[in-house]
Amino acid sequence: MSSASAPPVDEISSLSLTPDTTTVEESEFSQRVLIRSIISRPDGGAGLAGQTVRVGGWVKTGRKQGNGTFAFLELNDGSCPANLQVIVDEAVGQLSQLVATGTCVHLEGELKVPPVEAKQRVELRVQKILDLGTVDPAKYPLPKTKLTLELLRDYVHLRPRTNTISAIARIRNALAYATHTFFQKHGFLYVHTPIITTSDCEGAGEMFQVTTLISDAEKLEKELIKNPPPSEADVEAAKLLVTEKGEAVSQLKSAKANKETITAAIAELTKAKESLSKLEERFKLKPGIPNKDGKIDYSQDFFARQAFLTVSGQLQVETFACALSSVYTFGPTFRAEHSHTSRHLAEFWMVEPEIAFADIQDDMNCAEAYVRFLCQWLLDNCLDDMEFMVKNYDKSAIDRLRMVSSTKFVRISYTEAVAILEEASKERQFENKVEWGIDLASEHERYLTEVKFKSPVILYNYPKGIKAFYMKVNPDNKTVAAMDVLVPKVGELIGGSQREERYEVIKERILEMGLPLEPYEWYLDLRRFGTVKHSGFGLGFERMILFATGLENIRDAIPFPRYPGRADL
Amino acid sequence: MSSASAPPVDEISSLSLTPDTTTVEESEFSQRVLIRSIISRPDGGAGLAGQTVRVGGWVKTGRKQGNGTFAFLELNDGSCPANLQVIVDEAVGQLSQLVATGTCVHLEGELKVPPVEAKQRVELRVQKILDLGTVDPAKYPLPKTKLTLELLRDYVHLRPRTNTISAIARIRNALAYATHTFFQKHGFLYVHTPIITTSDCEGAGEMFQVTTLISDAEKLEKELIKNPPPSEADVEAAKLLVTEKGEAVSQLKSAKANKETITAAIAELTKAKESLSKLEERFKLKPGIPNKDGKIDYSQDFFARQAFLTVSGQLQVETFACALSSVYTFGPTFRAEHSHTSRHLAEFWMVEPEIAFADIQDDMNCAEAYVRFLCQWLLDNCLDDMEFMVKNYDKSAIDRLRMVSSTKFVRISYTEAVAILEEASKERQFENKVEWGIDLASEHERYLTEVKFKSPVILYNYPKGIKAFYMKVNPDNKTVAAMDVLVPKVGELIGGSQREERYEVIKERILEMGLPLEPYEWYLDLRRFGTVKHSGFGLGFERMILFATGLENIRDAIPFPRYPGRADL
Repeated sequence: MSSASAPPVDEISSLSLTPDTTTVEESEFSQRVLIRSIISRPDGGAGLAGQTVRVGGWVKTGRKQGNGTFAFLELNDGSCPANLQVIVDEAVGQLSQLVATGTCVHLEGELKVPPVEAKQRVELRVQKILDLGTVDPAKYPLPKTKLTLELLRDYVHLRPRTNTISAIARIRNALAYATHTFFQKHGFLYVHTPIITTSDCEGAGEMFQVTTLISDAEKLEKELIKNPPPSEADVEAAKLLVTEKGEAVSQLKSAKANKETITAAIAELTKAKESLSKLEERFKLKPGIPNKDGKIDYSQDFFARQAFLTVSGQLQVETFACALSSVYTFGPTFRAEHSHTSRHLAEFWMVEPEIAFADIQDDMNCAEAYVRFLCQWLLDNCLDDMEFMVKNYDKSAIDRLRMVSSTKFVRISYTEAVAILEEASKERQFENKVEWGIDLASEHERYLTEVKFKSPVILYNYPKGIKAFYMKVNPDNKTVAAMDVLVPKVGELIGGSQREERYEVIKERILEMGLPLEPYEWYLDLRRFGTVKHSGFGLGFERMILFATGLENIRDAIPFPRYPGRADL
Repeated sequence: MSSASAPPVDEISSLSLTPDTTTVEESEFSQRVLIRSIISRPDGGAGLAGQTVRVGGWVKTGRKQGNGTFAFLELNDGSCPANLQVIVDEAVGQLSQLVATGTCVHLEGELKVPPVEAKQRVELRVQKILDLGTVDPAKYPLPKTKLTLELLRDYVHLRPRTNTISAIARIRNALAYATHTFFQKHGFLYVHTPIITTSDCEGAGEMFQVTTLISDAEKLEKELIKNPPPSEADVEAAKLLVTEKGEAVSQLKSAKANKETITAAIAELTKAKESLSKLEERFKLKPGIPNKDGKIDYSQDFFARQAFLTVSGQLQVETFACALSSVYTFGPTFRAEHSHTSRHLAEFWMVEPEIAFADIQDDMNCAEAYVRFLCQWLLDNCLDDMEFMVKNYDKSAIDRLRMVSSTKFVRISYTEAVAILEEASKERQFENKVEWGIDLASEHERYLTEVKFKSPVILYNYPKGIKAFYMKVNPDNKTVAAMDVLVPKVGELIGGSQREERYEVIKERILEMGLPLEPYEWYLDLRRFGTVKHSGFGLGFERMILFATGLENIRDAIPFPRYPGRADL
């Protein structure tokens, strides 16, 4: 936002509920009132009694009552975790079609205060069934009984209908919008870094390749079967024809034949030559992936070179930070690691801000403010979903959000952290030995944040040997200005650093790490021309969801998890 | 947002400028005041005179004055199109290092009202140069002279420093945040659909393949060179050894040798067997991509099946609409088409809302409201950047935004549109003949929106033969409830439809189109179990940018364009 006028965003705070407590509006683009806008009112919707509304949703549980003269339905439309209680008389519709879990109903009815004191402050008396999507309970894969999250992963297309996955979807949505709001608020520009890349950010490998060579080869193979390539004899015959036609022209010329005859002969020669060149071209076609000098010929690939899925947008977003100062990227990233853990995905989302004129202190300030903002946002906007998570998955989830949003993060150097861990290891056994220079293991990180400080901790100034080439070398020449944010429950949530902006130093670091210079020339250009002090970090979005919700497995924190052997839909 | 409490988003309207007109705050996470927060004040920053501030940015133009005793710099930090005028005395720093275009400076100084009446209402008198990133003008690829957008595409890493690409970056950022704000405001949940997919949305092919088979084959090849596989003779020898060891055991047994001797012989036999089995395994290793029955063996690929980059998140986001009602996706999509036009990219971003309990009318209402919201947002938040585009690229860009944001879109059926075009073709020549049943060409679409109605036009109810299988068949059985939004300058901006929710009908349509059922079983499940009336659409984000800015080439509307033969960085 670059002008002074107020954006219309401020309308947003008054959106969920209309100020008038006696009416509720239909959603502008669908033929129904959001259940949230009924139930989430301060009066639980009681003030709406008497109003006729349309609602739609899926039956969570349904039961016939009063000898089958009416039915109760618990209806959920995904707008909030709570259900709307619905009463349908047998005169309105065939009750047995309505009560099955998973049935979709689109209903018109009157909101009423329940006759008996109940959990619900309002219920819907149905007057008309507008649409009905039935379910055969014998075939529906998600019956009312509680299913494990693991089993639900076999039904990624239906699992959003469960309480847990829909609560996570709302929390994920809230964290995504909170992310944009935080950075926009602080003047950062959202930049879409590329998904397909020809750079390898960390030089670490384990990238997915993006190619059309295989499908092109398959197409060619089919084409060659349908339309076989010429044989060597065909080509020889065509060559012979060219020779003959050429000789014919020579003879006619030396015989001083008339112009028309010569022209006609030349035309025949040209035709023969064209035909030969086509044959020669097709003769060269070989089934399979194109090779050159024993290697795959990537000049034939879609981008005329080898291409991959990005592992991080950092290097690319730096090009925008070195021009627009404060930027961030928020998009999918990929690792082709054969990790089968509950903490790794092959496709996951990362938030990566990059700030010019900022050093490692500014970077830590930004990371801390961002994480605290996210926690406060969930408390302000997703408390009902968080209460569901507390009840079902992690008793301390809300307390953790409160603690993080209100506590200043502890900041200690890597060197101090190692001293603390060495001291601690006198009294407790770590699986991995601690000494200056090692990459801290998860157990060490969790000890610091969960046991020692009981608070988020930012570690900074790591040994340069264990960190990436682009991190700024400190004056001690032993450490780099890197920082990691550690939080209870997940350990490392954020990794960041001040970037090395000195041309000579970063060039040296690239060579020191045994990386080739050529692919980084564009990155070096940022230091060659108008270099700037800058810093940034990356937050693994699904890790943030694990941290917030207390979920155990990252495969449940993303709508469509991708991991070795699995990419459903 | 699922609870009633007001989100903190409303703070946003007061962010760009502090209410106090005599001070300006440094950006919280970087050591500088945004130039926007100085210049974009109603008083042009004059009220800040006397304040000492730090700023940072890149020199657009610099010149020495007063016989080299001081220099003027035009400084830009990307926060707005305008530059801050900076004056540096020779006592403060080496002026010749500062004036080169592209130089990065981090400065401290005092804001002053310029002595002479000027365009600038405020300028900075530098007291201290905090950091300096120099440029060798002889080597800098982006000199002061105006460069063509085409040439800038060879410098994607530096082009954000140009006025045009930075203005587009701010406009793109604004449109992205406007998109989220619009949908959040209307109760939609943001869903991250997968990038790597095993479904082909349109059944149209032209997808990029995602694989680790090639890199695995390359790794294996290297490994086999380093550590050659056993020869047939090696395997035979190992077999022989197993036979010998087996015979030895038999002999010892029949000779009733003592237990220890037999145990030792059995141990040797076991060892020989293990060694054989390892050799046999390595003997099977073949360099190259794994094959099975003459075809590539995808069970060996990362996901144990063939995987692609998504061409649309629609089918997947429908699984969330059929549970959470109103959802949208906003992410990258891919087409491996060999299109070299100014309208196609291999990687582009799409916005795809999907709404349950919504028909084609609701869908059109949503599309229209969204596009008008985007236009109004740019007028409210990016007017300075839009003025830059008007001045340099498209005189009518702002007028177009005003027109669209304030005009109700014309809505006519495809059949009516064809009648209009047939009538028009009596007087004008179209390159493509118009008749009922054809897919309208760009010239037809642009005639309708630019000439006939001079307004955005929504066409609906297209012949089913030219549309996708998932679109709802109308009662006439000839058309489907599809709709396209056409706008001046780009033609089709949005394509959408009501989805076919009837199980039998959609199954029939899949078969009718010659598609296999099996890959769509999960999609059919959405109709089998609790099916719901629903609708959605897709907006090509870069097309929206072309429409808004008047840019000619889509390669300039995305930070890192990917197209045949090109994927820089």
